[in-house]
Amino acid sequence: MIRFDSDYTEGCHPKVLEALTATNLEQHPGYGEDAHCARARALIREACAAPAADVHFLVGGTQVNTVVIAAVLRPWEGVLCAETGHIACHETGAVEASGHKVLTLPHASGKISAGALREAITAARNDPNAEHIVQPGMVYISQPTEYGTLYTPAELEEISAVCREAGLPLYLDGARLGCALAAEPELTLADYARCCDAFTIGGTKLGCLFGEALVLTCDRLKPGLRNIMKQRGGMLAKGRLLGVQYEAMFTDGLYLACGENAVSAARRIRGALLEKSLPLAFDSPTNQLFVVLTRAQSDALEQRFTLGHWDAGSGETAVLRICTSWATTPAQTDALIAAIKAL
Amino acid sequence: MIRFDSDYTEGCHPKVLEALTATNLEQHPGYGEDAHCARARALIREACAAPAADVHFLVGGTQVNTVVIAAVLRPWEGVLCAETGHIACHETGAVEASGHKVLTLPHASGKISAGALREAITAARNDPNAEHIVQPGMVYISQPTEYGTLYTPAELEEISAVCREAGLPLYLDGARLGCALAAEPELTLADYARCCDAFTIGGTKLGCLFGEALVLTCDRLKPGLRNIMKQRGGMLAKGRLLGVQYEAMFTDGLYLACGENAVSAARRIRGALLEKSLPLAFDSPTNQLFVVLTRAQSDALEQRFTLGHWDAGSGETAVLRICTSWATTPAQTDALIAAIKAL
Amino acid sequence: MIRFDSDYTEGCHPKVLEALTATNLEQHPGYGEDAHCARARALIREACAAPAADVHFLVGGTQVNTVVIAAVLRPWEGVLCAETGHIACHETGAVEASGHKVLTLPHASGKISAGALREAITAARNDPNAEHIVQPGMVYISQPTEYGTLYTPAELEEISAVCREAGLPLYLDGARLGCALAAEPELTLADYARCCDAFTIGGTKLGCLFGEALVLTCDRLKPGLRNIMKQRGGMLAKGRLLGVQYEAMFTDGLYLACGENAVSAARRIRGALLEKSLPLAFDSPTNQLFVVLTRAQSDALEQRFTLGHWDAGSGETAVLRICTSWATTPAQTDALIAAIKAL
Amino acid sequence: MIRFDSDYTEGCHPKVLEALTATNLEQHPGYGEDAHCARARALIREACAAPAADVHFLVGGTQVNTVVIAAVLRPWEGVLCAETGHIACHETGAVEASGHKVLTLPHASGKISAGALREAITAARNDPNAEHIVQPGMVYISQPTEYGTLYTPAELEEISAVCREAGLPLYLDGARLGCALAAEPELTLADYARCCDAFTIGGTKLGCLFGEALVLTCDRLKPGLRNIMKQRGGMLAKGRLLGVQYEAMFTDGLYLACGENAVSAARRIRGALLEKSLPLAFDSPTNQLFVVLTRAQSDALEQRFTLGHWDAGSGETAVLRICTSWATTPAQTDALIAAIKAL
Repeated sequence: MIRFDSDYTEGCHPKVLEALTATNLEQHPGYGEDAHCARARALIREACAAPAADVHFLVGGTQVNTVVIAAVLRPWEGVLCAETGHIACHETGAVEASGHKVLTLPHASGKISAGALREAITAARNDPNAEHIVQPGMVYISQPTEYGTLYTPAELEEISAVCREAGLPLYLDGARLGCALAAEPELTLADYARCCDAFTIGGTKLGCLFGEALVLTCDRLKPGLRNIMKQRGGMLAKGRLLGVQYEAMFTDGLYLACGENAVSAARRIRGALLEKSLPLAFDSPTNQLFVVLTRAQSDALEQRFTLGHWDAGSGETAVLRICTSWATTPAQTDALIAAIKAL
Repeated sequence: MIRFDSDYTEGCHPKVLEALTATNLEQHPGYGEDAHCARARALIREACAAPAADVHFLVGGTQVNTVVIAAVLRPWEGVLCAETGHIACHETGAVEASGHKVLTLPHASGKISAGALREAITAARNDPNAEHIVQPGMVYISQPTEYGTLYTPAELEEISAVCREAGLPLYLDGARLGCALAAEPELTLADYARCCDAFTIGGTKLGCLFGEALVLTCDRLKPGLRNIMKQRGGMLAKGRLLGVQYEAMFTDGLYLACGENAVSAARRIRGALLEKSLPLAFDSPTNQLFVVLTRAQSDALEQRFTLGHWDAGSGETAVLRICTSWATTPAQTDALIAAIKAL
Repeated sequence: MIRFDSDYTEGCHPKVLEALTATNLEQHPGYGEDAHCARARALIREACAAPAADVHFLVGGTQVNTVVIAAVLRPWEGVLCAETGHIACHETGAVEASGHKVLTLPHASGKISAGALREAITAARNDPNAEHIVQPGMVYISQPTEYGTLYTPAELEEISAVCREAGLPLYLDGARLGCALAAEPELTLADYARCCDAFTIGGTKLGCLFGEALVLTCDRLKPGLRNIMKQRGGMLAKGRLLGVQYEAMFTDGLYLACGENAVSAARRIRGALLEKSLPLAFDSPTNQLFVVLTRAQSDALEQRFTLGHWDAGSGETAVLRICTSWATTPAQTDALIAAIKAL
Repeated sequence: MIRFDSDYTEGCHPKVLEALTATNLEQHPGYGEDAHCARARALIREACAAPAADVHFLVGGTQVNTVVIAAVLRPWEGVLCAETGHIACHETGAVEASGHKVLTLPHASGKISAGALREAITAARNDPNAEHIVQPGMVYISQPTEYGTLYTPAELEEISAVCREAGLPLYLDGARLGCALAAEPELTLADYARCCDAFTIGGTKLGCLFGEALVLTCDRLKPGLRNIMKQRGGMLAKGRLLGVQYEAMFTDGLYLACGENAVSAARRIRGALLEKSLPLAFDSPTNQLFVVLTRAQSDALEQRFTLGHWDAGSGETAVLRICTSWATTPAQTDALIAAIKAL
């Protein structure tokens, strides 16, 4: 069986493992206060053209999302988010467990619109019972979205403008940001740093064993961040492990290369699906494909490939997720394409 | 100006005030451990035909909702509720502030259906990522609903059956339960006690200065309730004030009489609205009416009456709420009806 | 039996009841947005010589303490407090339930010292593991303290100075502030407003049915306070009840008179205790007396008087609390003094 | 410089790195549902003689402590703990951030006594204001303690008996359990599993890159644990990393060997300290030594060794922590001993 069900089925990129091995017996202080973390922070600030940004390293996505949101919001505020957003759907209520409501917005292929965002903020503020409803305190988006889609440069600028006009921090969850960078090179790390008040550069799904780098460009969000990281279980004792991995990632373009491997494999598979006239539930330009298959078709593929079951559909057909990654080999992709052609 | 915008515009029923005055200088221990609370509890247990129920008195609705929900749910669980439910919309995220997600269900005129409820529970439990989503831990409904509508006896039985089958406690918010009792006499307090695991008998909107009586019929929900009441600011120092008020309410049928006054006034007004062919946004049999008015019509009425602004509508028209109460006098009702006729 | 076990054994002062009765059938908007609340706010601002203060009315002490603390602190901060403080001991962990640690300081007769406070703040900030410990975010004191003792003017000024130097808001819990005003007239409401960033003027124990007036003098603490009041169940639907009571309290010096009645009765009883050479556990100048009695002595008194059991002591003796109030009559005091003399 | 300031200054034991390398490109499902985790769980159950235990793997200590405590306690309950306990002092209020009070007990060299524990439980339950104080809901101890000391077999049995008698789950934080196993072989993993309702087998400080294995022997604590792990950011996407590490640890006695290396190095250093008549602040039989040094002595050592600054002491002297680990080499130990002799 070859797994195409998620992008965290392998360990880490060989270069990351090499770096971990090479530094394994070095002695370092804990909690991210070591030389590797310092160097990784410097590399990230440089890549983001954000010399004044704070950079923190956390182990996982739920951790980093919860920490940032809890650090930003006042107790009576909530976070605006697409109704399909990861924090709204797939973190077992982590945001609510920290005391805050996720205020959902309608989505189109996983994306919110600047217009709907502005309306929701205005409506909440102008509500005659404004004190009886949860007021928005920040905005959460992800790039790519849950459906693998991308905000265009113009869309990101518009959302950023709405947030700044409203005085609400914009937080972008970049769990798969490497795939966004590969698929939409017009948006660079510097653009994300400029448009967002906080964003993550995800490592878990892009060649690290684990890790999310959190970049804070907004001064107001910086104080106390390490305290709340520690409090919410987000501060790794051997923080150097994150430093070493991100150093490797931001050396010789490895981070982008990991994204490119995932995206180019996905594009080849997407081509095969389209050629076969298999309908896509959403048309994703990144490393996640959502294809509508009949039961016979999915049974055929699943004899040799593990796929993600996205949506039970209406019985006859179902939506399956095909996910590529930094680790996907040409041979694996070839095998899947051959099987698709044989359907 | 005569107020018809809510049912808490006056103080309390004269008989309640008499009772408070008569007992004012009595000396009693605090925190609900006095003789008046004991007697009020006994009267309520008797009225509910629930001799083993625990009865607690709290000051307000947000308090009692939050306390019950926080007492019932485990940290990873949420509460199922109509998307229009009070806890979902009008308590500034009180449930989320206690760490839990409100899991919303579609509504019809403010009501959820047993079918949709069963489906939501099944879907959450069978989700392939069940551990990554918030699991339902209880069900919240209100009677009357936010829109003044009522669950029929059959609907309440069905919802109760779904909850018991699923092992989820059913909690009914009875902030205006007196109006439900008046409008739908087929459902008695004993029925609510039998169908629900916990419910409230609201006093604030039915003739008390303030107060919600919480009736717990399910043994599992009883332990620790007073502790969490104290913790969440829901235990009144001079608890006797609640005991004295509920004693008065459950003497000589005062509670039901308060509901009947509100409902009969509303029915007369509803008749006038229909006679005038003014459309109702929802057809409520209780003390809240939701009428669609043109700007000219609402301006005319609002010269002498304060009404609730429910929904801005589409510009030309808006939905206004007309609310009667235990305190509404025939003269006030006559005046409003005359004004409606004159539109 | 005559109760001397607490200062909330009666309802309210007759003038308060009169005001509630006189206004009972007036129609008002809810949630503290009525004319009585507005007038009560104005009277309090004037009495405090604090024209820019925000004034809010809540029902009870645990509510107001939790709301203020949750509104002020960031998630990783705690509140400094005497180890005997009400929030540390007698609110079932309400502060912790809102996510914050109570950082306790040693006490002398219920009071903290400015020196110990400065040291604790410095130690927390300079700790080599400062990010791993809870940082102080505000300071809580009460006046009178749990033991009925009072901060002197100089002590209050010093504590205030330490807080301002450290940039930490000072919050004073004045559940019995009327007794402090009566017993230590050198400290006026204007002094409390000047020295504190937030404080309460307690009504429950001083002649109201219930109620705590929260005075916010620090601008930084003002935004969102009503939102969090609503969220934590602290916003009374019929807010006018609080407005009417505080109007009465701040008319013709009733609030102070209530405190004076309590304090003067306590002083007479204290005199009798000292004359009888009964030891005081703490020497309180306010309305709570803590006397060490043998079992025989307490048994004798408790045949006719209900007293508070403060501390089981070492078997032979126990500490009993004698509490007077606005409602204590000369006849009640005479009866207790006679019984003390007869011991 | 050679680091003796903590036991997490290196990466991981070479055998662990080997296992991670060997399995790196294997494809596995996420979230701990892979074959390595399954095998590691089986090995741990066997080592604990606890075939029915649930075993979960989390990344760090604060995470696992918070998750277990939040999963066990009801909202009004707190956790009993030595005043020096890690959760009381060094987790930035993580327990309070999840809504619960840490109820502290006096300690002797970091340990609580069964007698003081029983007294505290009885006092809380019998308090006349029991509903106004936080009730104990579980007991937390660590082995070794914060001071490197160990509960004897008899002490552990007694504490366990008090907990069972009181119906309170006993949770043992075994962040350094390998050192306890090495230093006190009379207490085996099976003993910990028998005496405790939940305990951890710490990996971060014993040869893993990171990881805490949580063993739940009490059936009542099992449901929902994975849900709350996910919610609190404690579920690693590539859970296989924890499985692979614990498989290595529980193969050929590696876990115990790591503890033995740390403890034997510490014993040699302890011998040198005693020979030199340097006073120990606490006499620890495990891998942490706490020695009282003059400024001149610590300056001398710190020219070549990094030590932990435990306590500023009284100016003249200070308490320094010397920490050995699985990674400490004989050469490093020899160097430190030579330096101690040369003081």
